[in-house]
Amino acid sequence: MSPFPTVAAFEAALDRLSQPDMAAREAATARQGQLTKPLRSLGRLEDIAIFLAGWQGVERPRITNGRAVIFAGNHGVVARGVSAFPAAVTAQMVANFAAGGAAINALAAAAGLALSVVPLDLDRPTADFTTAPAMSEAECLAALSAGAEAVGDADLLVLGEMGIGNTTPAAALAAASFGGTPALWVGPGTGVDADGLSRKAQVVTDGLERHRPHLTSPFEILRRLGGREIAAMAGAVLAARLKRIPVVLDGFIGTAAVAPLATANPDITAHCLAGHCSAEPGHTLLLARLGLEPILSLNMRLGEASGAAVAVAVIRSALAAHDGMATFAEAGVSGA
Amino acid sequence: MSPFPTVAAFEAALDRLSQPDMAAREAATARQGQLTKPLRSLGRLEDIAIFLAGWQGVERPRITNGRAVIFAGNHGVVARGVSAFPAAVTAQMVANFAAGGAAINALAAAAGLALSVVPLDLDRPTADFTTAPAMSEAECLAALSAGAEAVGDADLLVLGEMGIGNTTPAAALAAASFGGTPALWVGPGTGVDADGLSRKAQVVTDGLERHRPHLTSPFEILRRLGGREIAAMAGAVLAARLKRIPVVLDGFIGTAAVAPLATANPDITAHCLAGHCSAEPGHTLLLARLGLEPILSLNMRLGEASGAAVAVAVIRSALAAHDGMATFAEAGVSGA
Repeated sequence: MSPFPTVAAFEAALDRLSQPDMAAREAATARQGQLTKPLRSLGRLEDIAIFLAGWQGVERPRITNGRAVIFAGNHGVVARGVSAFPAAVTAQMVANFAAGGAAINALAAAAGLALSVVPLDLDRPTADFTTAPAMSEAECLAALSAGAEAVGDADLLVLGEMGIGNTTPAAALAAASFGGTPALWVGPGTGVDADGLSRKAQVVTDGLERHRPHLTSPFEILRRLGGREIAAMAGAVLAARLKRIPVVLDGFIGTAAVAPLATANPDITAHCLAGHCSAEPGHTLLLARLGLEPILSLNMRLGEASGAAVAVAVIRSALAAHDGMATFAEAGVSGA
Repeated sequence: MSPFPTVAAFEAALDRLSQPDMAAREAATARQGQLTKPLRSLGRLEDIAIFLAGWQGVERPRITNGRAVIFAGNHGVVARGVSAFPAAVTAQMVANFAAGGAAINALAAAAGLALSVVPLDLDRPTADFTTAPAMSEAECLAALSAGAEAVGDADLLVLGEMGIGNTTPAAALAAASFGGTPALWVGPGTGVDADGLSRKAQVVTDGLERHRPHLTSPFEILRRLGGREIAAMAGAVLAARLKRIPVVLDGFIGTAAVAPLATANPDITAHCLAGHCSAEPGHTLLLARLGLEPILSLNMRLGEASGAAVAVAVIRSALAAHDGMATFAEAGVSGA
């Protein structure tokens, strides 16, 4: 059976989010206090180790089955001139992923992550959301379920996307979820000029006007303004939560995918780390609204889980210190 | 022969800094423009790859002989109550490094770095700089040379330190090099309270007053206010530059070690990456004064090259993308 066969099933899942293993969190916190270093001196590395302890349910978490999943989709709004690249590039880049030539291939390998690519009906772009809902109910449920099914049994899940034009639906999702003017949420994406930027803002404005009365639930926001790869990431985040699998979010689009879910249940991001803050201006705002502190801020804006994969290298460092260090007692070092 | 047998030899080295291989830099820059991603979309990762191309002198730089070196020293100013830990911890932590139990052991292993530890006369602390120069001329030259000798043939050099009390001399070096009140440069270090913090500021004030007329050259600043592990890091940075070996600096102390050199030749940091910005407040200011943008900002404040080692994981990701990605032509992907 499909993970989310009905809208009700999706909404019920969002209503019964799992919680971390508090005993494992406490054990990991206690361990950090005994390791040979000044208290809290590993900063964010300590937080990351404790976070993963809670979600993996063990005092010393490990990444032995880390997985990056890239969802790909095409977008009807590309016809409105919102991207610097032609829509054909989505499929070309999926072929590049398969051939091993994209950034995420190199970065996933460097981070010790298995890589899966899930193309979602690339020959059937979503509808232009300024004229119709981007997806039918069945299409959106199928995309959510495809995301959920890709989660598998990873012990750390990294989510990414490829979809020419998808910063525009992402901006629409952010605006629908958190308010603010479209101009606040649109940015240069892969590199549109000032004209392109004002087209993007207009497209988002048109989309919000077209659908405003219906933007009252996470599902309707995703269905009307999102895209297949975006709904798939939302479905994967939710399915991972049901399995207590920690997630590393990537950039603006992957974060925007979670925004509609957060409007119904702000706790949805509790099992998520923000891998990085991208150069897309709206990403900073989105992370702040979701209460997520990015691990990295390297001015990246590529998508395909690239920033999140680099963050996994930092996460591995955090776990290496947490697992490998001696305690003050073991090392015979005087505490403060 | 010792790398810096005389003050004149040290000053001459600082006066004839090598420059990066511009042809290799240009080749790496051109390659970044052809890889299957929007222009500049890998952000800082692109800068890092191009930086290393220049200093390693090859279009596709690699880290096959990366090395972290930790210098350790003891400080007479500890008697002034500037640290939360007793001075005996320096030697205890050196033993912990040797036994493999410290954070840097785990983090260097995670980053694929060989680790060397260079204890410098731990049973002979430097003089309390409020009453005398921290080191004699011969002692300072020996420490500079010990640092230079530790550089070896690394293709990436990560520098770190261990020395109970050494945020205080670091603050003094920063103040002597860049001005500003001592209160601007002192911070909690490994965790002193408000009283400890005001003691640190007073000790720095006293040291500056004691030595002010003589703080006119990098050597005298290092010798009078620094410490053996600090001078060793300065010597290593300079020796690495003569060999065109790129360096990753760690935290406040390692960055402060370079500050006196920058007063004589601001170009001294051109072969250095700032691995991270630590939680020590003065580090942010120091990095700004040296024109260094930290790779990471994870609220770490441990020293022992820990933040720089985590940054190496990011640097490896940068090189993996630079080396492993396909070009638009190779992948048959349409450019923007």
